[in-house]
Amino acid sequence: MKQIEFFYDFASPYSYLASTRMEGLEKRTGAPVIWRPFALGHVFKEAGNAMTASIPAKAKYMITDLKRWAEFYQVPFQWPSLFPLRSVPALRAALAAEELGQFLQLSAALFQAYWTEGQDLSQTTVLQKIADSLGLPGAKIAARIEDQAIKDKLRANTEEAVRRGAFGAPTFFVGEEMFWGNDRIEMVERFLQGRKA
Amino acid sequence: MKQIEFFYDFASPYSYLASTRMEGLEKRTGAPVIWRPFALGHVFKEAGNAMTASIPAKAKYMITDLKRWAEFYQVPFQWPSLFPLRSVPALRAALAAEELGQFLQLSAALFQAYWTEGQDLSQTTVLQKIADSLGLPGAKIAARIEDQAIKDKLRANTEEAVRRGAFGAPTFFVGEEMFWGNDRIEMVERFLQGRKA
Repeated sequence: MKQIEFFYDFASPYSYLASTRMEGLEKRTGAPVIWRPFALGHVFKEAGNAMTASIPAKAKYMITDLKRWAEFYQVPFQWPSLFPLRSVPALRAALAAEELGQFLQLSAALFQAYWTEGQDLSQTTVLQKIADSLGLPGAKIAARIEDQAIKDKLRANTEEAVRRGAFGAPTFFVGEEMFWGNDRIEMVERFLQGRKA
Repeated sequence: MKQIEFFYDFASPYSYLASTRMEGLEKRTGAPVIWRPFALGHVFKEAGNAMTASIPAKAKYMITDLKRWAEFYQVPFQWPSLFPLRSVPALRAALAAEELGQFLQLSAALFQAYWTEGQDLSQTTVLQKIADSLGLPGAKIAARIEDQAIKDKLRANTEEAVRRGAFGAPTFFVGEEMFWGNDRIEMVERFLQGRKA
């Protein structure tokens, strides 16, 4: 049974867009999506890549492009006043929630909190509040953010993705076939359905 | 009547892929495509952008991605042993052919010669031969490559694109709405049809 690994970072707007499509992708392909948080800043560093936002003309276009995708997907989107986001605490919180079996619920809520409401996910208190609002044990999750096991897990996800060829986000794997970008979701789908490309 | 401006460089593999879709795009949207050669090297320089190929992990993925698109489009594609291409002579030849009303025919042939046969388009003799094979006056076109008026025309196209926000290739404009990349052709189409995004 094939599965889709979805590597994402809350700091990445295209990861947010992609996150809103994963449920539909699962339904259409029958392949489960495995959500895997990773630290995009480290990926960039390892791969020698740079944030799109570091090139002015590209950054300007990216805002337009993101708005077009959000309109096409019919999902809310608002560029956060706080950018870039120091997303490591949120990524660790997501991994802590995974241990409680509440991974997806918290990840989806964190994406929304940042990309539609501009909440500061670098603050543990903010993360705790969001977890609490979902009925999760916010204090317990918040306490795990500085836990070495959780830190190691995030680092391991990141290093694995880089080793397998990732250089940006979101990155999808079907086996060792890699697909980069929200705009390659259709290609993932075609690949799984055995159609051309 | 809306039209689609298509800025391209023969050195750009995604421009080649896009070039194979322009006829279909015209038919489906009823909007004419205006082919506009520009010098991508200068665009990168002006915009502070870098070739994808300069980041190893990205370059490796790009080859896979290009093959997937070529398979999806069902067009031939082969990475040329001669890369990057010094494409300025070929871009000027295309503009010289424009004056003869043979623009599209030559541009399509040049894209194919490089991206499916790996011919060295930096050589005037190669350009002349390709033009001749199409029944165009190859010697006349070749002679125009060092012509100041043609040089100025290429420079003007390039500077205009950068001024309007371009930072890569292919770049499409519908009025002042800009779309970057072969993978945004569907978005151009949706935009022209007044659908979402």
